[in-house]
Amino acid sequence: MTPPLGFRFAATYAGIRKVAREDLALMVSDRRAAAAAVFTANLVKAAPLLVSAKYLAQTRGYCRAVVANAGNANCATGSGERVARATARAAAAALGIREPEVLLASTGVIGVPLNARPILEALPRLAAALAPENFDVASRAILTTDTRPKTASAAVRLKSGTVRVVGMAKGAGMIHPRMATMLGFIFTDAALTPAELRPMLAAAVETSFNRISVDGDTSTNDTVYLLANGASGVRLAGAERKKVQAALAEVAGQLAVAIVRDGEGARKLLTIMVEGASSDAAAARIARSIANSPLVKTALAGADPNWGRFLSAAGNAGVSFDPGKMDIELNGIPVCRRGKDVKFSESDVQRSLEAPESTVRLVIRGRGQGRARFWTCDMTEDYIRINASYRT
Amino acid sequence: MTPPLGFRFAATYAGIRKVAREDLALMVSDRRAAAAAVFTANLVKAAPLLVSAKYLAQTRGYCRAVVANAGNANCATGSGERVARATARAAAAALGIREPEVLLASTGVIGVPLNARPILEALPRLAAALAPENFDVASRAILTTDTRPKTASAAVRLKSGTVRVVGMAKGAGMIHPRMATMLGFIFTDAALTPAELRPMLAAAVETSFNRISVDGDTSTNDTVYLLANGASGVRLAGAERKKVQAALAEVAGQLAVAIVRDGEGARKLLTIMVEGASSDAAAARIARSIANSPLVKTALAGADPNWGRFLSAAGNAGVSFDPGKMDIELNGIPVCRRGKDVKFSESDVQRSLEAPESTVRLVIRGRGQGRARFWTCDMTEDYIRINASYRT
Repeated sequence: MTPPLGFRFAATYAGIRKVAREDLALMVSDRRAAAAAVFTANLVKAAPLLVSAKYLAQTRGYCRAVVANAGNANCATGSGERVARATARAAAAALGIREPEVLLASTGVIGVPLNARPILEALPRLAAALAPENFDVASRAILTTDTRPKTASAAVRLKSGTVRVVGMAKGAGMIHPRMATMLGFIFTDAALTPAELRPMLAAAVETSFNRISVDGDTSTNDTVYLLANGASGVRLAGAERKKVQAALAEVAGQLAVAIVRDGEGARKLLTIMVEGASSDAAAARIARSIANSPLVKTALAGADPNWGRFLSAAGNAGVSFDPGKMDIELNGIPVCRRGKDVKFSESDVQRSLEAPESTVRLVIRGRGQGRARFWTCDMTEDYIRINASYRT
Repeated sequence: MTPPLGFRFAATYAGIRKVAREDLALMVSDRRAAAAAVFTANLVKAAPLLVSAKYLAQTRGYCRAVVANAGNANCATGSGERVARATARAAAAALGIREPEVLLASTGVIGVPLNARPILEALPRLAAALAPENFDVASRAILTTDTRPKTASAAVRLKSGTVRVVGMAKGAGMIHPRMATMLGFIFTDAALTPAELRPMLAAAVETSFNRISVDGDTSTNDTVYLLANGASGVRLAGAERKKVQAALAEVAGQLAVAIVRDGEGARKLLTIMVEGASSDAAAARIARSIANSPLVKTALAGADPNWGRFLSAAGNAGVSFDPGKMDIELNGIPVCRRGKDVKFSESDVQRSLEAPESTVRLVIRGRGQGRARFWTCDMTEDYIRINASYRT
């Protein structure tokens, strides 16, 4: 994956996690980049988020570098902010930039102090190794229980040239909407101001990272950064910004679906479409309730066309609708009409649910126009195995 | 278990479920009983709930009998209300009472039509077999994936005699607070009016069935009935009603904890105590968020003192508090003070978490007086196995 112009990357095994696999990434823009961030909605926020939010306020939305580590969340420890600041200072020194121009992100266990030393020792080495082609190794350094890296890219051809958008993410568990619940780093060489960038990121997150669920748990460390450095030299005419927005939404959407596909223990992707709700927000709440239902997710694992679980989960969404007007289709096959059973071939639906991708469509037959799309995965014994094993 | 005076029971295998195990119970009060009900908060309500609510309105809160079946929820099918009413009519005919004096409850698969015929055929047989000592067999007929029956009793010695409260429940999966999310039938021979009974049941449910979670899913069929027939002949003086209320809360609490203990795949019970929240309701929300967190429940399964998951789940409760003021104890051992790690023996805590019962205590050090107690169980691979297996 080739990153947009003017971005360079490096990663190494600093020794934060026990397994000898890359665990520290440095991501740098050669020039000052406008930056936007979305942080977790959890009341408990890890130190790197708190410190980065302060930095962004100090720089009024600009940055030069991101330091991300896996293996430790740097959350709920007495030394958290101190370690986060020391990391930013060391990165700034190695790069010849200012401390608040460094943004931070961490993922891993909560409540265990993060040792700053291996990070501080590794940063000069990383600064010396920066290169565009290290994007991929950086995308591996942020992983935890993920089984594979997640990257996505898009290019937008405009009158005065091409703008590129490239992103990487990590997910696996503790994945729940109402903010990213994961780490995501998106880079573009478009020229945009921080004020332009923030609503663009918010809109892209809303239809991507906020529409996925693995287990309904929202982490203390969820972070998405979007950096725009203008290195493409392309000027965006008014209508052209929409095209960049679409490319950004595309990249964020691809990363979000990749996270669900690689959910802890997941073998199947389920796309949930809700139509006819009283508003888009109501549709999203219904879809979210389905996406978080362990009974829906285990039924998917077992390829069981137990559509009553979808109806029941919809009824638990806290949204008002008439269940007697709800139709449900599983992989295109009607299984419920107006809240009641219809005849269908169980074996056909069962077979279709054995595929790696399924879709459930819930339509409320009324006047509502609200719709939402949401993604979740099946819940398998491996989810339990992964999360019940003692921390390593 | 001996039921209170004036109640008789019978159960049989009517043929609703495939396995030849009791699946139909008839519970009768020899005299008119005041009745109170709490039904699911799910927007989708099964036919027996809708019909029973109408009956209770017609009788102004009295009943003579309850018919409960396992193996089919009688929910979301075109024939639901018809089958429910036919059941009540047949029970009324067999018992020589009126149709609206019969309350109904069902549990099992949603969206598959319930065949009325085996029920209508079995009811006369059941009416002929009614006896107090059949309480236990009736408590088995309402089970689904439960591994054992759940019953509880209490006796209150008062000036003019003794009042008894006895209950049975079924649970296993789809167990989540905000109403019972299970079936529960409680009987007392105290003399109480429907108007007296309703707030008593509501209060008892609030601290018992509304304070448990197995998987966070709320069923379409959750029902708790409380019947008071006055057969003890005991008159309750003003202050004595509180004693009956306490006995009722005790029985409901025992049944609720029994449900969690026997949660699908559960091997361990976790009691969650939250103190120092801004209100009891806020404390309950924090406790509920912890009780529903798959990461908390899998950590318990693995005996992992990963207390960050408790803190994170508390932060997701949607309740405002200062995480920097939260202390956490696992089985009496402090693991977090003021939101930060403290030194503790991991092996001691781990060993303690291997016991069948654990307690987590979260205390917010401030001015809040809100407290709540909540129960949940661990989430094991067996939960997945049970729920991912194709319906039988």
